[in-house]
Amino acid sequence: MKLLRYGEPGAERPGLLDAEGRIRDLRDHVTDIAGPFLTDESLARLRALDPARLPLAEGTPRIGACVGAIGKFVCVGLNYADHAAETGKPAPDEPVLFMKATSAVCGPNDAVEIPRGSQKTDWEVELGIVIGRRAKHVARAEALDHVAGYCVVNDVSERAFQSERGGQWTKGKSADTFGPLGPWLVTRDEVPDPQALGLWLDVDGVRRQTGTTARMIFGVAELISYISGFMTLHPGDVIATGTPPGVGLGQKPPVFLRPGQTMRLGIDGLGEQHQAVIQVE
Amino acid sequence: MKLLRYGEPGAERPGLLDAEGRIRDLRDHVTDIAGPFLTDESLARLRALDPARLPLAEGTPRIGACVGAIGKFVCVGLNYADHAAETGKPAPDEPVLFMKATSAVCGPNDAVEIPRGSQKTDWEVELGIVIGRRAKHVARAEALDHVAGYCVVNDVSERAFQSERGGQWTKGKSADTFGPLGPWLVTRDEVPDPQALGLWLDVDGVRRQTGTTARMIFGVAELISYISGFMTLHPGDVIATGTPPGVGLGQKPPVFLRPGQTMRLGIDGLGEQHQAVIQVE
Repeated sequence: MKLLRYGEPGAERPGLLDAEGRIRDLRDHVTDIAGPFLTDESLARLRALDPARLPLAEGTPRIGACVGAIGKFVCVGLNYADHAAETGKPAPDEPVLFMKATSAVCGPNDAVEIPRGSQKTDWEVELGIVIGRRAKHVARAEALDHVAGYCVVNDVSERAFQSERGGQWTKGKSADTFGPLGPWLVTRDEVPDPQALGLWLDVDGVRRQTGTTARMIFGVAELISYISGFMTLHPGDVIATGTPPGVGLGQKPPVFLRPGQTMRLGIDGLGEQHQAVIQVE
Repeated sequence: MKLLRYGEPGAERPGLLDAEGRIRDLRDHVTDIAGPFLTDESLARLRALDPARLPLAEGTPRIGACVGAIGKFVCVGLNYADHAAETGKPAPDEPVLFMKATSAVCGPNDAVEIPRGSQKTDWEVELGIVIGRRAKHVARAEALDHVAGYCVVNDVSERAFQSERGGQWTKGKSADTFGPLGPWLVTRDEVPDPQALGLWLDVDGVRRQTGTTARMIFGVAELISYISGFMTLHPGDVIATGTPPGVGLGQKPPVFLRPGQTMRLGIDGLGEQHQAVIQVE
C-alpha cells in the first residue's frame, strides 16, 4: 500500500495511491496518515478497502509529507562507509544519532529554502523508516515488526551550521524545508528487503548520489534495535538512515546548492521527489 | 497565571493553579495546555476567567508535564561558564544546541528511570522557555514577545550515552522520563526578569546545584533570537536553557544517580519538582 497526504500545507488529507497511480481519498476511514493509524491493525483495515470505491482526489493536488504529526525525527549519521570517507570521518563503531526538528518537515516536491546566511546547503538522499508500533529495547530479530513502512527522505543539511557553529549537528539539519518526506509511505509488506534498495539524487540533471541500502554499515533492523535502547520509538516517529556518497561536501572541490537549482531523488519502489531550490530572505 | 496539566499520563487535563494553590479545571475553556492555546490571545482569555468559578480538581491528582504535544525540545549546552568549566569544556562562543526527544517528557514528580546499562545518569536543573508565538529570525529586542511562559526542567542526562557512544549528545538526553517539565507553566507576565531567577537541585537532601539565571552566558532573549535563526520555533516548543554548576559529572570524583535516591529541584517563582530515581529493566 502506498499511503500519502495531499492538500495545502497544514491541511493535508489522508490518501492512498491506487494501482493506476491516482490518489484516492481516505478521509472517511482515517483522520490522518499519522501515529495512531500506523499500527498493523489500522493498516490492515485500510488494506481491506477496495480502492475503486474510494473517492478520487480532484485535480493535481500538492503532495504533503507522507506522515503527519511526527513525534520525533531521528537521523543516523555516517551510515555508509564511502560517505563517511568522503566527509573525512572514520566509519563509526556504533550508529551516530542526531535529531532533525520536526518543523523542518515538508512535502516531497515543496521548494527547499536556502537559509539566511547559508553558503553550504547540501543534499542527502536517505531511506526513511516510519515506526508503526512502540519500540523500547527491541531485539534485532523483532525490529522490523515495528515498522509501518518506508519513504524517501532528503536530509537537507547546512554544512557550516552543522559543523562550524559550535558543535551538535542538529543546528545544520533543522531549517524549515530541510525535511522533504515522501511522496508515499510504502507499507513494509511491499518492501520485502529494505537492504536491497537503490537510491539516487540528481542536481540539475547531474547524477550526484548513487547508492544501495545494501551498503549501510548498520541495517534497518539493527538501527531500530539500537535506537530503541536509547529512547522509546512511537508510531509516527521517523528515522532517516544515513546517506550514500555523493553529497556536495564530498565533491572535489565541494559544491553546494544555489537558488534556481533543482533536486530530484528517489529510491527503488518508494517513488521520487523533486525540489526547486529557492532563497528566502 | 500558573497553568498545568493533571491526571494520568497521556490523559492529562488542562488546569490552572488558583491563589490558594488549588487546581481549577480548564476543560471547558481549552482542550490542552499546548501550542494553539499558548498565544497571547488565548492566554488573555484564560486570564479573564474568575478562578473561583472554575471547577476544583478532585483529590490530589498526578501533575503532568506543563505543556502537551510539544513539537520540539531544544536544549542549550554549556550556558553557564562555571558549568562549562566543571565539565572540562571552554565556554562556548555561540550557543551549543541539541535536541531532547519529546518522548522523554514526563511529569515533574514522576519517577526518573535509570536506563538499562546506565552507570552515569545525572541531573540538570534548568529554566525552561515555552514558546507562545511563531519565531523565525526574530531580533533579540522582540524575542520575549514570543514567550508564553517559563517552567522548571530537569534535563536528565546519561553521560556515557552522551559522550562515550559515538558523538551527538541527543543519545544521552532522550531516554524515557529524562524530561520532567513543570509543575507549572508560569506565564511571562509573572516573570518580569527571567535573568534574575535562583535555581537549585538537591539529591537526597544534599544541595548539589545552586545558581542564578543572571549567570547565563546567553540570556533568554538572545537564545530565542539565535535559535530562531536556525529553525522556526512554534507555539508549544520548549527550550531548556542550560544548567548551572553542580551536576554529578562535575563532582570530584563524579557522582551519579542510584536507584532509591530522590531529586528535588526548583526555580524562584516557578515551583518545585521531586523525583524518585528508579531502575527499570
